[in-house]
Formats: sequence, C-alpha cells, structure tokens
Amino acid sequence: MAITLGEVAEVIGAELLGDPGQRVVEIAPLDQATAEQITFLSSEKYLNHLSTTAAAAVILQPQHQDQFSGNRLLVNDPYLGYAKTAVLLHPEQSVQGGQHPSAVVDPSAKISEQSWIGPQSVVMAGAVIEASVEIGPGCLIGPNCRIGKGTRIKGQVTLMEGTILGQECLLHPGAVLGSDGFGFANEQGRWVKIPQLGRVIVGDRVEIGANSTIDRGALEDTVIEDGVKIDNLVHLAHNVRVGKDSAMAAMVGIAGSTEVGPGCTFGGQAGVVGHLQIVGGTHCTARTLVTRSIDQPGSYSSGTPAAPSRRWRRNMVQLRNLNESIQRLKKAEKRIDEMDGRLGDLESNEKGTEL
Amino acid sequence: MAITLGEVAEVIGAELLGDPGQRVVEIAPLDQATAEQITFLSSEKYLNHLSTTAAAAVILQPQHQDQFSGNRLLVNDPYLGYAKTAVLLHPEQSVQGGQHPSAVVDPSAKISEQSWIGPQSVVMAGAVIEASVEIGPGCLIGPNCRIGKGTRIKGQVTLMEGTILGQECLLHPGAVLGSDGFGFANEQGRWVKIPQLGRVIVGDRVEIGANSTIDRGALEDTVIEDGVKIDNLVHLAHNVRVGKDSAMAAMVGIAGSTEVGPGCTFGGQAGVVGHLQIVGGTHCTARTLVTRSIDQPGSYSSGTPAAPSRRWRRNMVQLRNLNESIQRLKKAEKRIDEMDGRLGDLESNEKGTEL
Amino acid sequence: MAITLGEVAEVIGAELLGDPGQRVVEIAPLDQATAEQITFLSSEKYLNHLSTTAAAAVILQPQHQDQFSGNRLLVNDPYLGYAKTAVLLHPEQSVQGGQHPSAVVDPSAKISEQSWIGPQSVVMAGAVIEASVEIGPGCLIGPNCRIGKGTRIKGQVTLMEGTILGQECLLHPGAVLGSDGFGFANEQGRWVKIPQLGRVIVGDRVEIGANSTIDRGALEDTVIEDGVKIDNLVHLAHNVRVGKDSAMAAMVGIAGSTEVGPGCTFGGQAGVVGHLQIVGGTHCTARTLVTRSIDQPGSYSSGTPAAPSRRWRRNMVQLRNLNESIQRLKKAEKRIDEMDGRLGDLESNEKGTEL
Repeated sequence: MAITLGEVAEVIGAELLGDPGQRVVEIAPLDQATAEQITFLSSEKYLNHLSTTAAAAVILQPQHQDQFSGNRLLVNDPYLGYAKTAVLLHPEQSVQGGQHPSAVVDPSAKISEQSWIGPQSVVMAGAVIEASVEIGPGCLIGPNCRIGKGTRIKGQVTLMEGTILGQECLLHPGAVLGSDGFGFANEQGRWVKIPQLGRVIVGDRVEIGANSTIDRGALEDTVIEDGVKIDNLVHLAHNVRVGKDSAMAAMVGIAGSTEVGPGCTFGGQAGVVGHLQIVGGTHCTARTLVTRSIDQPGSYSSGTPAAPSRRWRRNMVQLRNLNESIQRLKKAEKRIDEMDGRLGDLESNEKGTEL
Repeated sequence: MAITLGEVAEVIGAELLGDPGQRVVEIAPLDQATAEQITFLSSEKYLNHLSTTAAAAVILQPQHQDQFSGNRLLVNDPYLGYAKTAVLLHPEQSVQGGQHPSAVVDPSAKISEQSWIGPQSVVMAGAVIEASVEIGPGCLIGPNCRIGKGTRIKGQVTLMEGTILGQECLLHPGAVLGSDGFGFANEQGRWVKIPQLGRVIVGDRVEIGANSTIDRGALEDTVIEDGVKIDNLVHLAHNVRVGKDSAMAAMVGIAGSTEVGPGCTFGGQAGVVGHLQIVGGTHCTARTLVTRSIDQPGSYSSGTPAAPSRRWRRNMVQLRNLNESIQRLKKAEKRIDEMDGRLGDLESNEKGTEL
Repeated sequence: MAITLGEVAEVIGAELLGDPGQRVVEIAPLDQATAEQITFLSSEKYLNHLSTTAAAAVILQPQHQDQFSGNRLLVNDPYLGYAKTAVLLHPEQSVQGGQHPSAVVDPSAKISEQSWIGPQSVVMAGAVIEASVEIGPGCLIGPNCRIGKGTRIKGQVTLMEGTILGQECLLHPGAVLGSDGFGFANEQGRWVKIPQLGRVIVGDRVEIGANSTIDRGALEDTVIEDGVKIDNLVHLAHNVRVGKDSAMAAMVGIAGSTEVGPGCTFGGQAGVVGHLQIVGGTHCTARTLVTRSIDQPGSYSSGTPAAPSRRWRRNMVQLRNLNESIQRLKKAEKRIDEMDGRLGDLESNEKGTEL
C-alpha cells in the first residue's frame, strides 16, 4: 500500500519539511530503509545513521532536523509517529462475513452476518457475536459468551461460559478466558472445590497475548477495563480487576481479588499477591513482587540483579544472616559510643593533669 | 435451584438458628446478598456488614451469632460452609453420553456409552474412556490414554500418548499432559535428545488449570497423586512426583525428578529446582525459590518485596558488595575489641597514677 | 526393538567388555533394569546399585569398570551413551504421507505427498510443507508458513502468518509461534498499537516445548538459530535472537530485541530484560534475572534462596534498610579511625609521662 508524505504528516500531526507528494510503501529501521520506505529516529543512539540512511523520509524530533537533509516529518514523539504511520501502511483487513463449513455453530447462537467463524471453530449455545468480528481457526466460544463489534480472535483461543468481550479487542492464540478460578476450602487436609460462578468481563480495545489465562470470578466477576494491554503467558486470577489502559508484559501474574488501578504498567515476570489494592499510575519493573497494597503512584522494584555465581553465592550466605549482622552493627555502634565516652574522660583527665 | 436451610445445615454440619424451611436459591457476598440468597462471614473484617445484609441466612462462627438476628448457620469454618453450600446450589450437571459428529474417534478406542466426546475433538488409537467422562470441544486424547470415571476435560486440552487420568479429575483448557520432558545430553556443544519414554500418571480428584503443562517421564513416570490441585500456567517437569492433596498456585514450576510430599502448598510463581525432596507439610509463599531439599515441614520464603525503585537500587548496590561489607564489619569489631583493650590499659594506668 | 551390545558399542563409541551378541530390548534405571535391559551409571551416588543390578549390560566410565562383572560398555560420558542408546532403541517412526479427511487445507498450500496433516488441523493459504513433515491433530498452520523436511509438529500447535521452521524441528502441544509482539506507543495515556510486521524464523533441529510462545518481530524478524532447545512455557519476545545450540529450561522469558549468543543455557524461570546482548557461553542458574548485557562467558545467578519464613522476614526488614546500614557501617569505621588516633595520642602522651 502506497501513501504520500502529505497523508502521513496529516495522520501523525507532523510538520513536513519536504515533498508532500512523495510516496512511501513501507516502514523500515533507519539503517535499512530504502528509497521507497519511511523511517524514524526514536533514540539519539541511532543519530549516526541519519547521515547514511537511504530512506524516502525520516520521522524525527524538531531538534534533530538539521542533521538530515531529505524529507523530514517533525514530531515530538517519533515512536508514536512510527506507530501511526505503520497503522496507516498496514491497516487491518476488513472481515468477510460467513462461516467455514467445518465450523460447529449451535443454532441458538446469534451471529452477525458480517462476522466470520473460522475452520474447526466451535460456537456454543446462546453465544452472541456482533458485526465485524473475526473468529479464527480452532477457537472455542463457550455458552452464552458475548463478543463486541470489531473484535478479532486469532486461532485457538478459548472463551469459557459467559465471558463477555467488548469492541475492537484483539486476542492471540492459546489465550484462555473464563476458566475456573483456583478456589478451595480445606477440610481436614482435603480440598473442597468452591464452584466458580462469576464471569470474565473485558472492555473495549483490550489486547490479550498468546497462552495468557484469565479466570472467571468466584461469586462476582473478573473485570478487565477498556484499553488494557496484556502480553503472552500472563495469569489473572479470579476476581482481579485491571484498570483502564494498564499494561502487563509477558509472564506477569496477579493473584485473586487484587485490584490494579488505571494506567499502571508491569514489567515481565512481575507478580502481585492476592487481595491488594494497587493505585493507578503504579509502575513495576521486571520481576517485581508486590506483597503489600500500593497507595502512592510511582516506580517500584524488587528482586536481585544477576552477578557472577561465585560472588552471588558469597553474598547470599551473608544475606541469610543479615539480621544477625545488623544486630552486630548496632552492638558495635554502642560500643563505639561507650568507648568514645571513656576516651573523652581520659582526655579531659589528661588535660586536667596537664593543667 | 432452590434448597432449604434445613438441607444446607445438614450438608455443611451446621447448627441452624432459624427457619429450616426457608428457601435460598443462590450464594452471594455479605454486602450484596438479597432476601433469596444465603451468605457467609469468613473474616472479621466484614463484621460490620452483618447488621445491614439482606440475606436470607448467614453462615458464621458461633462466636458471632449474637451480631445477627436473622437465620444463622453456625459452623467453625464458614469458608468451608460456603464451599459446600455452593456445591449444593450448583451441582455438576450429569454427562450425556455420545459423540459429536465432528469428533474424530479411532475405532480401536474404547469409550463408555455414558461418556461424551465434544465437537472437533480427536481420540486416538487404543484410548480407554470410562463412564461419565466429559471430553469438551477441541481436545486431543492421544494413543493409549486412559481416563477414569467421572473425569471432566474442558475444551482444548491435550493428553499425549499413554497419559493416565484417575476418576473425577477436572482439567481446564489449554492444559497439556504427557509432552516430552526436557532431556538432552551434550556432545561437544550440540544437544542430543534423550527419548522420553515414561508416562504421566494422575490420581483421582486432581484438578489441573488452564495452560499448565505436565511432562512425561524420561524412563520412569511423572506422578500426580490423589487430590492434588494445580492452578494455571504451572509446569511440572519429567519424573516429578507430587504427593496427595498438595496444591500449587499459578505459575509454579517444579524441575525434573523433584519429589513433593503430601499436603504441601506453593504460592504463585514459586519454583523448585530439580532432584530435590520436599517433605510433606511444606508451605512455600509466593515466588519462593527452593534450591535445597526441605526435610522440616513449615513455611518457607524467599525473594525480596517491592520498594520504590530508587530505594531498591541503592539497596541492590549494597547487596552486590554485601560479603565485603560483612568482612568490614568483622574487621571493625576486631578493632573495637583491640581498642577496648588499649582503653582499659590506659584507664588502669591512670588509676594507678591517681593512686 | 532388540539390538545387540555390539551395535550399541559401535553407535555410542564404547569399548565393550563382554558379549557383543547379547541382545537388549529396553533401557532402564540401574536399580530397576532386568536381564533384557541395558542401563547406565551417570553419577557416583548410584555406585552401590552396581553390585545388585540385574541388567544385561551397564554403560559406565572406565574408572568404574572393576565394580561390575557383567557386560560393560566403557565411555567417558555415560549419560551421552544413555541418550544415544535410547535413540537406537526408540527410533522416530517414519511419517506416512497423506491428510486426514477432517483436516482443512487451503488449495494454494504446497504440501509434500510424503507429509502428514492430522485430524482437525488447518493449513492456510500459501503454506509450504516439505517432505516427511508430521502435522499432528488440531494444529493451525497460518498463511505463508514454511516447514522444513522432517520437522514434527505435535498436536494443537499454532504457527501464525509467515513463520518459517527449518528441518528436523520438534514442536510440542500448545506452542504458539508468530503471535504479535507486545509493541505500543503511548499517546496521552492511551496505547497505540504498533503493527507487528516481522516473522519468526527458526533454524534446523530446534525443539520448542509445550505452551511456549515466540512472537513475530516488529519490523525485522525474531530468529532462533540451529540446534536451540526450548522447554515448556518459555516466552521469547519480538526481535529476540537466540544463538546456535543455546538451551532454555521451562518458564524462561527473554524480553524484546535481546540477543542471546550461541551455547548459552538458562535455568528455569530465568529472565532477561529487553535490548541486551548476552555473550555466547553464558550460563544463568534458575530464576536469575539479567538486567545488563553480559560480555564475559561464565555462570551467573541472582535471587535469594528459600529460608524459613520467619527468618526470611527478619532479613528482608534489614534488606529494606541495607543502604542506610552500610552508611552506618562507614560512619562506624570513621569513628573507629578517629578514636584510634585519639587513643594513640593518649598512649604516646602517657609514654611521655612515664618517660
């Protein structure tokens, strides 16, 4: 798909220095772009590529405009400009309505004629699928699920009974929504299963990554609000609530009944234990483990960075006795205080002697 | 489904203060229950809701009976009472025998007429499926698998060759049992695959969560004993053995050949390295990493809790040199001892002088 | 399948002490092997089983040859000998060409007649599948994927658009390759999706475990080189490159654009943040978190080992204030220095007095 720089400038809100009629067909990295491609400068560490790139145009910040002489699109956030340009060059294809003959669709399901049910997929009783929905191959849409307009479900996704998806969501292969929460009472050592009766409710424009799992609530619902982005292999337990526009990188786990506010971000492999409140605007770096509620927005971390194993082992031996060591430090401080006093006495006595 | 408080009292072993003929149709949280619903008080932090709840009845501990004037069911463990009441109100539906026409079933498989094979599922040669088994949509039951009476396998589950499931198990979507263990020998930098020849053997009443994986053994079998409960995205490696009634929260990983005793619990994202013995009654909190065998039952933890990133970074810089710091502490202590001696000498000399 | 010890000796490069015509039918652990089975001694901790084993033959190191009197196969690495013997006894079955009638194959896909497409699988437009490829049940092979000769894809695997697999790879159930990378720009709190346009390129002899996910690149490709072995529930983000013969145990996560050199190993639950360079020959123990590039080969670790929870909590309280404690240690050292000086002054004065 070819577009002009004039179109790009308008869509990304850039000041164009150059030829608005110049056509570009693709977006490419700065050091690889050819004369038919547009590129972008998102970090100063690639500044040196500016002088050699063959790109038809570069999206960059105004402060760097003098370092390139070809077509320039000036924006404050070139990475955002790249995102919007890529969307312009690679728009989602519209969904063709219909059902593959191998799909198994319950007669009681209500499916828009403008939606597609892919090969080998199963749509169960009472499901409601709105217009322009794409259900890819091998999906399972359980009883009484509802899927909003324009949502795309890639192959091999599972929605269990009663799951509700909003509009324009995107679900990747292997994602499972609406599986039972992990709830048991213990009776003399034996686990008694608590029936999981709540649903998974997902808002609009939510993206859910490959092989991620979101459990249904126990009594009430698990809720993912609008605009939330979830990467691969993430686990959200029963009755979790994730606030608007929060994002979670791969392998994050949020335990049961924890509420995450809006606009939070979680780095890969981060975790939050159950029944906590995480205030909006909280950012957890990779692998952070949150064990208490957070009521102040900001950046949080935990975990220990990698070190050569031998050095690490020596430090860990000391960490095992850290409390004892700090008690020894306290004792040392006390003795220093006490000796300081004794020294002072001796010194003043000596002064007295000298006098 | 409506039941009477008399029935509830009998099933959960409660003393009923109130009307045994009162009917309830659902279970709901204390602050939301309506006049047709039953509720429970599982934690003192909800005590204040007792005075305002509209519930038809409350399951609670005898010590709180005076704080509510309506129908009360007195039990020592209201959470267990809730679990049993929920099961009573939401019994598993019985399985209707048969096969969906889209299922692909090998003629050599032996399948009870009282079991159901769902749409798009595949049952391969030599599989044996006992009565009242539910195989949901999109499942793959590999060659020579055996599935015990009353086991329910939700959609999109995979059992690879030779996997054996006991009775009344419950498997959630995306679970994979019987995949190859991760076994390689190294020959001059190149990995030589070790054929994985063992099976996965699962006992009765085992629950396995969405997208969890349990590998087959290398030579011997991987074994999950009766009553074990496994949450989502858990990994059990080849030749692991998990003892009766142990439970593992989401994202737990147990490495090869490790044996976990009965009645253990693992919090989310916990891990155990390979070839260890974990004694029964061991409880690991979330994210704990176990690197040595545990022979004393009790609660174990590791990992570092979240802190504001700036504070955390400063602490981590110090942790990197912890061993050196503790050596410095030792040295400081020695110098204090030595100076203490010198001070004492001076003081006794002075006394002598004074004398 | 029965083979002679002579054949085994030749294949594993062993010196045979014993009867080359002796047949064995299986491989078994040292303490369980019967008279028709071959076994191996891979660790000295099993030495005591040598005197009682009923095995037809033992693969062991030359230094232990005198501790067993039956048939012996002498090699330097008995574990490697075991691997090769097991392969000899359990060769991969050859693939029968054809397609199951329930498979859905796009007419534009080019599939070798010597390859098998299993039941309920879907092969989409433009896919190319070479000879001797096995596609198990329930797989989704997306548009324009290419699969090299002899590769085996077990059931329920998903390859998204444009994924390329080399020869003799092995993919386990639930693996997802080619799902979208997690790429978003932020516009005033709202996430703007960056179209993911790169591919996943996998070399020869790569093994990928159950429910692992490998995302397609954003602009360029995600690349897995020859001989890489990946366990279950591993996540490789967009634009990751994994070097030849590297291996990753279960639940490892590698964030976007990180490059891992050849011959690296990662223990279970290890993680590497994005945009790093990990030099070849790096070995990370279980749960290690790598937050900076590594340019020296060797063994690296992080994380804190499990301890009884009470002891751990006390240590963590101190860790929270570690930086302050080390500042106190520094201050204590300075005071010791200063007091040492004062003591010296007093002592020399006293000496003077004594003189």
